[in-house]
Amino acid sequence: MATLIKNGTIVTGTDMYAADLLVEDELIACIAGGLDVDDVEVVDATGQYVMPGGVEVHTHLDMPFMGTCSSDDFETGTIAAAMGGTTTLVDFIVPEKGKPLSAGLATWRGKSEGKAVIDYGFHCCIVEMTDNTLDEMAEMVAEGITSFKMFTAYPGVLMADDGAIFRALRWAAKEGALLQFHCENGPAIAELVDEIAGRGDLAPKFHGQSRPSRLEGEATARVLALAEVAGAAAYIVHLTCNEALEAVRDARRRGVRAFAETCPQYLYLSSDDLAKPGFEGAKVVCSPPVRDAWHQEPLWRGLATGDLQVVATDHCPFNYVGQKDMGKDDFRKIPNGMPALETRMHLIHEGVNQGRLSLTRFVDAMCTQPAKLFGLYPQKGALVPGADADIVIWDPKREVDLSAAALHMRVDYSPYEGKKVMGGPTKVYRRGQLIVDGDRFLGAAGEGRYLRRQKFDQ
Amino acid sequence: MATLIKNGTIVTGTDMYAADLLVEDELIACIAGGLDVDDVEVVDATGQYVMPGGVEVHTHLDMPFMGTCSSDDFETGTIAAAMGGTTTLVDFIVPEKGKPLSAGLATWRGKSEGKAVIDYGFHCCIVEMTDNTLDEMAEMVAEGITSFKMFTAYPGVLMADDGAIFRALRWAAKEGALLQFHCENGPAIAELVDEIAGRGDLAPKFHGQSRPSRLEGEATARVLALAEVAGAAAYIVHLTCNEALEAVRDARRRGVRAFAETCPQYLYLSSDDLAKPGFEGAKVVCSPPVRDAWHQEPLWRGLATGDLQVVATDHCPFNYVGQKDMGKDDFRKIPNGMPALETRMHLIHEGVNQGRLSLTRFVDAMCTQPAKLFGLYPQKGALVPGADADIVIWDPKREVDLSAAALHMRVDYSPYEGKKVMGGPTKVYRRGQLIVDGDRFLGAAGEGRYLRRQKFDQ
Amino acid sequence: MATLIKNGTIVTGTDMYAADLLVEDELIACIAGGLDVDDVEVVDATGQYVMPGGVEVHTHLDMPFMGTCSSDDFETGTIAAAMGGTTTLVDFIVPEKGKPLSAGLATWRGKSEGKAVIDYGFHCCIVEMTDNTLDEMAEMVAEGITSFKMFTAYPGVLMADDGAIFRALRWAAKEGALLQFHCENGPAIAELVDEIAGRGDLAPKFHGQSRPSRLEGEATARVLALAEVAGAAAYIVHLTCNEALEAVRDARRRGVRAFAETCPQYLYLSSDDLAKPGFEGAKVVCSPPVRDAWHQEPLWRGLATGDLQVVATDHCPFNYVGQKDMGKDDFRKIPNGMPALETRMHLIHEGVNQGRLSLTRFVDAMCTQPAKLFGLYPQKGALVPGADADIVIWDPKREVDLSAAALHMRVDYSPYEGKKVMGGPTKVYRRGQLIVDGDRFLGAAGEGRYLRRQKFDQ
Amino acid sequence: MATLIKNGTIVTGTDMYAADLLVEDELIACIAGGLDVDDVEVVDATGQYVMPGGVEVHTHLDMPFMGTCSSDDFETGTIAAAMGGTTTLVDFIVPEKGKPLSAGLATWRGKSEGKAVIDYGFHCCIVEMTDNTLDEMAEMVAEGITSFKMFTAYPGVLMADDGAIFRALRWAAKEGALLQFHCENGPAIAELVDEIAGRGDLAPKFHGQSRPSRLEGEATARVLALAEVAGAAAYIVHLTCNEALEAVRDARRRGVRAFAETCPQYLYLSSDDLAKPGFEGAKVVCSPPVRDAWHQEPLWRGLATGDLQVVATDHCPFNYVGQKDMGKDDFRKIPNGMPALETRMHLIHEGVNQGRLSLTRFVDAMCTQPAKLFGLYPQKGALVPGADADIVIWDPKREVDLSAAALHMRVDYSPYEGKKVMGGPTKVYRRGQLIVDGDRFLGAAGEGRYLRRQKFDQ
Repeated sequence: MATLIKNGTIVTGTDMYAADLLVEDELIACIAGGLDVDDVEVVDATGQYVMPGGVEVHTHLDMPFMGTCSSDDFETGTIAAAMGGTTTLVDFIVPEKGKPLSAGLATWRGKSEGKAVIDYGFHCCIVEMTDNTLDEMAEMVAEGITSFKMFTAYPGVLMADDGAIFRALRWAAKEGALLQFHCENGPAIAELVDEIAGRGDLAPKFHGQSRPSRLEGEATARVLALAEVAGAAAYIVHLTCNEALEAVRDARRRGVRAFAETCPQYLYLSSDDLAKPGFEGAKVVCSPPVRDAWHQEPLWRGLATGDLQVVATDHCPFNYVGQKDMGKDDFRKIPNGMPALETRMHLIHEGVNQGRLSLTRFVDAMCTQPAKLFGLYPQKGALVPGADADIVIWDPKREVDLSAAALHMRVDYSPYEGKKVMGGPTKVYRRGQLIVDGDRFLGAAGEGRYLRRQKFDQ
Repeated sequence: MATLIKNGTIVTGTDMYAADLLVEDELIACIAGGLDVDDVEVVDATGQYVMPGGVEVHTHLDMPFMGTCSSDDFETGTIAAAMGGTTTLVDFIVPEKGKPLSAGLATWRGKSEGKAVIDYGFHCCIVEMTDNTLDEMAEMVAEGITSFKMFTAYPGVLMADDGAIFRALRWAAKEGALLQFHCENGPAIAELVDEIAGRGDLAPKFHGQSRPSRLEGEATARVLALAEVAGAAAYIVHLTCNEALEAVRDARRRGVRAFAETCPQYLYLSSDDLAKPGFEGAKVVCSPPVRDAWHQEPLWRGLATGDLQVVATDHCPFNYVGQKDMGKDDFRKIPNGMPALETRMHLIHEGVNQGRLSLTRFVDAMCTQPAKLFGLYPQKGALVPGADADIVIWDPKREVDLSAAALHMRVDYSPYEGKKVMGGPTKVYRRGQLIVDGDRFLGAAGEGRYLRRQKFDQ
Repeated sequence: MATLIKNGTIVTGTDMYAADLLVEDELIACIAGGLDVDDVEVVDATGQYVMPGGVEVHTHLDMPFMGTCSSDDFETGTIAAAMGGTTTLVDFIVPEKGKPLSAGLATWRGKSEGKAVIDYGFHCCIVEMTDNTLDEMAEMVAEGITSFKMFTAYPGVLMADDGAIFRALRWAAKEGALLQFHCENGPAIAELVDEIAGRGDLAPKFHGQSRPSRLEGEATARVLALAEVAGAAAYIVHLTCNEALEAVRDARRRGVRAFAETCPQYLYLSSDDLAKPGFEGAKVVCSPPVRDAWHQEPLWRGLATGDLQVVATDHCPFNYVGQKDMGKDDFRKIPNGMPALETRMHLIHEGVNQGRLSLTRFVDAMCTQPAKLFGLYPQKGALVPGADADIVIWDPKREVDLSAAALHMRVDYSPYEGKKVMGGPTKVYRRGQLIVDGDRFLGAAGEGRYLRRQKFDQ
Repeated sequence: MATLIKNGTIVTGTDMYAADLLVEDELIACIAGGLDVDDVEVVDATGQYVMPGGVEVHTHLDMPFMGTCSSDDFETGTIAAAMGGTTTLVDFIVPEKGKPLSAGLATWRGKSEGKAVIDYGFHCCIVEMTDNTLDEMAEMVAEGITSFKMFTAYPGVLMADDGAIFRALRWAAKEGALLQFHCENGPAIAELVDEIAGRGDLAPKFHGQSRPSRLEGEATARVLALAEVAGAAAYIVHLTCNEALEAVRDARRRGVRAFAETCPQYLYLSSDDLAKPGFEGAKVVCSPPVRDAWHQEPLWRGLATGDLQVVATDHCPFNYVGQKDMGKDDFRKIPNGMPALETRMHLIHEGVNQGRLSLTRFVDAMCTQPAKLFGLYPQKGALVPGADADIVIWDPKREVDLSAAALHMRVDYSPYEGKKVMGGPTKVYRRGQLIVDGDRFLGAAGEGRYLRRQKFDQ
C-alpha cells in the first residue's frame, strides 16, 4: 500500500523545501506540493524533516577480532541502525589469509542473510596481496563488492606494503574500484607499543600514546602520494586528526581524488576520556585512538566545508564486562572498537544545532556522499523519484538520550552515558515499509537485502 | 497552460536521475517517474538534461563607466542571458557619490523595468562610507537588496579603507547582509600604473602588468582577515589567480565563512591573449586582468572541490570599435570589461566534458550556490516543487559556436571567436513560459520581474 | 693600553673555539691560540664566553609619547644597555609632521650627545609622505641613517597608506635603504577600540583584545606582498605572533628578502600577564600586545631556524606610578611600552640554557644579524681583527636577578620581578675600554659615539 | 715552516673581513690585521678570498655498484677534490650483508689508506637491520663513524622498513649519531619501473619517469615524521625537488631537527638533459633523478635561506664508454651516478655570482655546516686559531672550464662540457701544506689522514 508523507520539510544533500512525498511499491513515486492521492496511508510530517535514510559505510558486525567477536550481529546491529535513522549499511568482509576472497564473501553473506533488517552491502578487506589477489578482486567487483580496504597498520597481520598498495591503486583506477585505507604507520607503532609496554605502562591511556597522530598524518599523506602517482582515487577511513585532514586537503588541492570519512567519536571524545581513572578508558579504546581535544575543532570545520566528505562509525562494539576487560592489565589486549552505529545521526545533527554545519551538509555527509562514493546512488542516499523509499522523518525537537539503557546496540555501555541531544527520527521507512515508529521497531530479521554495488565513478 | 517535461535526466546541485517534471502556474508542481497528466503541453527531453535555469550574479548592464557605457542594456543583455541558459541575474547598482543609495536603486529600476526578459535583482556598490551609509544600507536590505560590493581597488574613486570595510562587515554580520569584495591593492596598483605609463609603456598588455596577481592575493587575504575578526562572511568577486584562491582556502580552513566566484575568462583566457599583436589585446582588458595561463589549472581544481563556490561573469561589454579604441594609445583609457553573460554556461559545461568537474557540481556552481548565497533560494536555482519554473533543457550533444556572429550580446566581437564547444540549451523556460526554443527567442521585453532578495543566511 | 683576553671560549655567529684575543687602540687586533704579548692588561676568561657586544636595534629613549616621555634617556638607557651586555644601539628618530627629517635628526642628536655611554645610530620614522619625503630620506641616507620605519597602524597619526609604502619600497630598493614596518591593521583596530571602549571595557586587558594577532598577521603579509612586487627588502619590527611569522616564512619561501625581529616580551609574557588583577596588566601594555601564550613556542622555533633573524627590545619604559597610571581608568591612555633593554641578552641566553637555540645562533641574533642588516658590520657585531673592540665576557654560570631593584633602567618596575636566570656579562668593553666590571659601571656619559651606518646590502 | 697569508679577504660562514692569517704546524695560529712574522713563507692574497677548505660529505669512491665500480678511487678522487678546493671528504662504507659493520670499515680503510691526498672520514650505510646491528653501530661510533645512512629506496637490496628506521632513530637520539636518509618510495618505484620497462620504454629518460618527485617528497615527509615522533634528528641526502624541500621546511617549522643537502646537479641539470637524443641522457642518470627544471629555483632559494643546509655531491662517476653503456638498451642497467666532486665549489660559487646566495652562506653550506653536522668542527670547516690549516685561496675572477679535459676526475666525460664559470681556487692548503698551486697538484698519495668524527650534537 502506498504512503503519502505530507507537510514535511524535505531535506536533501543540497535542497530544503516544503513538499509532499508519495511512496509506492518500495520506491519514491512522486514529490509535489499539496499532493492528494486516494487510497494511501497519509502521514503528517508537520514540523519535521523528511530525509533520505542514513547510509553508514563502516561497520564491523559479528566480526572475530583479538580473540573475541564484536558484540552486535547483523540482526541487533541493523535494528540499532534503523532505530538511529540509518537504513543502509556497508560492512567489511575480512577474508582469511590463504583463502580466496570469495570465501570471505560467502562467510559474510552467511552472517547477514536472514538477520539484517535493513539493506546492506560489503567492502572487502585485503589482508594479503598474492599473485591472485587482483584477479580475485575483479571477481568481487562482479559480485557488487566495489571497494576494498588496505592497511598501512598492523604489520604482519593486515598491513600491505607500499608496493602492494601502489599496484592495487593502479588496478583500481582501471577497474572502477575504490580503495579505502586505514592510515597509521604500523611498523613505527609496533616499536612504540613494545617500548611503552616494555617499561610497564599498560593502562588504557597508553594505547593512545602508542599511536601518535603524526603517524596517522604520515600514512595518510603517503597513501595519497601513491594515489596521485597512480592516477587513482583513495578513500581514507576513520580520519581522526588535524595532521591527516591537512594531508587530505593538500592532496585535493593538488587535484588528487582524495576522500575521507571521520567518525562521531573523533568529534566528541578525546584523550581525556582515554585517561579516565581505572579501566574506564577502555570503553573508548579504538584504532586510530581518540585524540587530544583540540583536533575536534578542525575536524568539524573540515566536515562543514566538505574537505571531509563522509561521517561513518567504524562501529565495532565489545562489552565492557567480558570483552574489554580482557585487557584489564594490558592495553594491548583490550579489544579495539566501540559502539557507534545507532548514535551517528544524532551526534552529527547536534553539530547542526550548534551551527557547525548546515542541515543539507548533514544529509549530504550522512546519506548522499556515502551512497555516491560507494556505488549505491541514486538507489540509496537520495530523495528522488525512482529511488528506494528509505526515508527518515526526523524531529529536530525530539530529545534523545544517548545512555546505554536508552539505546539498542547489544553492548553493555555507552561512550556517551548521560548525554542528551536534540533531534532524532520519529519514523523510519525501509523501501516504503515503516520499520521504526517512535521507540518501536516494527521490522523483522532477514528483511534487509544484499546490495550489489556499482563501480566507482566519482 | 501546464507543461510536462518527459524523459529527461533531471540534474540538480547534488542529484541526477530520470524523472518527469510538471510545470503549472509558473511553478514546478510535481516531479515523478512516468508522470502522465491531461491537458498539458508535453515536451520530450529524451537524451537531455533538465536543469534549473542559470543564476548569474555579476553583471553590469547599461552601466556608465570610464566615459562610456557598457554596450548591453537590460533588454539585449537579458535576451543574451536567456539564449545562453541563464534565467536570473543580479546586476550592480552603482550609486552616485553624495546621493542616497535609494536614488541608485531608482535609477537601476528605471534601467531595467520594461526591458528585462528574465527575473533580476540588484546588489549595491558602496562607493563612499558616510555617517549615513550603514543606515541607508539597512533601507536597501528592506527593499530586497541584501548584498553590497566594496572595493579595495580604485583609490579616490571607489575604494573603501580598511576601517570602513571592517565597520561594514560588523554591520553585515548583524543585519543579514553579505558583503562582496573587489580585491586588488588599489594604491599599489596606482603607483605601478604611473610608473609603467610614465615610461611610455601604453599597450594593452601593460594593463595586466600594472595589476600583478600578488596584489589580488594580498587584498583577498586582507579582506578575509578583516571578516574573520569581524565574525562576518565575505564573498570575493571575480577571483582570478592562485594567490587569491589560496587565501580563500586558507580562510575557510580557519573557519571563516569565505566565499568566492571566478569567471569564465579567468579559466580560458590568459596574459597571452592580452599580449596579442596590435590592439587586439584590448578585447580582453578587464580588472582584475586575465593572468598567466598556469593559474587556470588551480582555479578549475578549486571549482571542482568547492573551494570556489560560484561562476559568474562580470559581464561588462564594450565595442571594440568606438569604445575599446578610446584606449588605442593608452591602456589606461581602455574601458575595462568584456562580454561574458551568454557564454557562461557553455564554457563551464565544457569543463564537464573535459572531466574537470562533475555535472552536479556544474549545476551547483551555475545555479544553486549563487541562488543560496544571494537570497534567491529555493525560488531560483532549484528544481523542487514550489520553485519558480525556470528550467533549461540542455543538450550535451549540441554544438555551439562562440563567435560573435552566433551570439546575441550587443557587442562587436567575441573573446572566443571561432571556438566551438559541445553542449547548450535547446529550450529555456522562465516561470513556465518557453522563452528560448532552439535558436529563437520567444519572450518580450519587460516580462522579467524585479526580485526582492532574502537576507543572507549561509 | 692594550688588553689581552686569555683562556676564554670565543663565540661568534657561527664559530665557537678556544683562543686568546688582543685588543689595541679600540680595535680587535689579533686572535690566536696561546697568545702572549708584553705590556698588556691580561684578563682571564677561563670558563667564560668571549662574545661581540650586543647590538640592539629597536629602542625609544627620551621619546615623547602619549602625553609623556619614555623614562630612560640616552644616559640611563645606555648605561642599562651596557650593564646587560649591549654595546651598540639604534634608536628611532620621530620627526615632527610638517618639519624636515633633518630637524628630527638634529633633535635626536641633541638628546644623545654628551649622554650616551655606548655607540649609537638612528633609524628614522616616516610619519607622513609628502612630495619631499623621498628626497629628505635620501639626505638622511647621506647622514648615515639608512633605515626608515613606516606604520600600517595608528591611522591619522603615523600610518602610511599602501601607496606611500609601495612608493617608499621602490625607492629603497634603488637607494640601498632598508624599510622597517610596524605591522598591525590600524583602521580595523581603531574600530575595535571604539567598540570595546564604547561598551565600557576599559581595563588593561582590553588593550590586547582590541589588537588581535590576526590583524598583525594581515598587515605583515600585506607589507611583504608589497615588497615582493616592488622588488625590495622589508624588515618587520616587533613580530609577536604565529600569524605574522607564517607570513614572513611564506614570503622568504617565495624569494622575498623578508626579515623580522621579535622581542623578549613576546617570548616570555602573554595575555595572562595583561589580564592580571587590578591595574597590574598595565605594566606589560605595549603595541602590538603580548599574545596568548601558545604563540611563544613557534616564535622560539622561528628564532632557532633563522626565520626570525633578530631579537630587539622596543625598549620604551614608563613608570608604573606617574606614567602608566594615566590610563588607570581607560586602557587607551596607558602609555604603550615597557623596559626591556637591559634584560634582552639574559632572557635570550636563557633560551640557550633551555636548549631552544644554539649559542652561536644566540650571538648571531643578538649581535651579528642586527649589525649586518643595519649597516654596522663588521665594525660592530663581529669578533674579527679590525672590528671595534666591543666585547662581552659572559659567564654562563652567573645568576642574574631580573627584578627592578637589581636592574639599572630608570623605571619603577620590572615585568620579570622575581625571575632569576643563569648567565650574564662579567666584563663589557666598549672600543677596548672596560665599561662594566661585574656590577660596576665604569664609563662616563658622552663617551658613546654617533654611528653613520652603511647602506643596506643584504 | 710557517706560512703567512697576507692581504686577503677572510670569509667564513658568517664573517667577511680583511686580515692576515698565520699557519704554523699544520694549524691556524693567528688571525690579525697587518701581521708581520719572521721566517715565514709569505703569500699575497690581494683581491682573493681566504676560505676554509671545502668539506664534502657525500662521495662514493672505489665503490662496487651495479656490476661495476665507480671510476674514481681514493687517489684520483681526492686529487680532483683538492683541485676543486675541497680538503676534507666523508665517503660511505657499504657493508656486505651478513658481515659485521666493522668488516666494512676495514675494507674502506683499505681502499683509502696510502691513497687519499686529503683528510677523510666515513659514514656507514645500513643495509640490513639484524638483532646485532644497533650494537655494531655503537662500535662504529666508537671508531669515529658517527653517521649512518638508511634507505627508503631499493627494496630487497638496501631498503629499511619504517620499523627499522624508527628503531634506529630512537637509538641515534640517545647515542649521539646522525641518521642520513636516501628518500624515495622504493616499492612504488619498483612497480613503476616494471610497468615502464614492461611496455618497452627503455631509454635513459625513462629512468627519470620511473622515479617521480612526488615519491621523493613522500619518503622525505615520512622519514621526518618518524624522526619527530622518535625525538631524533634526521639528515636528508641528495634532496632534489620542491616536494621534498617543502617536507623539510614543514618539519623544521614543527621543531623537528631536520637537515638536508642538495647537490649541484639538481641545481643545474634537469629532465631535459636526461631526455637528450640517443644515449646522451645516460651521462646524468643518477638516483634520485634530475628533475624538471622548475625545481631548481626553489632549491636555490632554500639554499639561500638555510632551509637546505649543505651542498654535497653524491660523487659516483662511471665512464660513458665501458660503464654507462652497460645500459645502452635498458635504463635499468645504466650505473647510477655522475662525476661531481671537483666542480662542487665552482658551481655553487656561480650562484654567488648570480646573486642567488651570499658569499658567507656559500662558505657556510660548503664548509662549515657539513663540518658541524658531521662532527668535524672546528677542526675542519672553520678559519679559527687551532683549526686545521685547510685553507683555500679563491680567486673570484678566475675563469674555470668545467669540460672533462680541464678536470681531474677519472671519468671520460663531464656533465657540464663546455660550461665556463667565474671563480676558483688558486692555492689550496691541507693542514698547512700547499697541495694545489694554480693548475698543479703538489701533494702525494697517502698524505690524507683518517678522521675520527665526534658525536652528533646539533
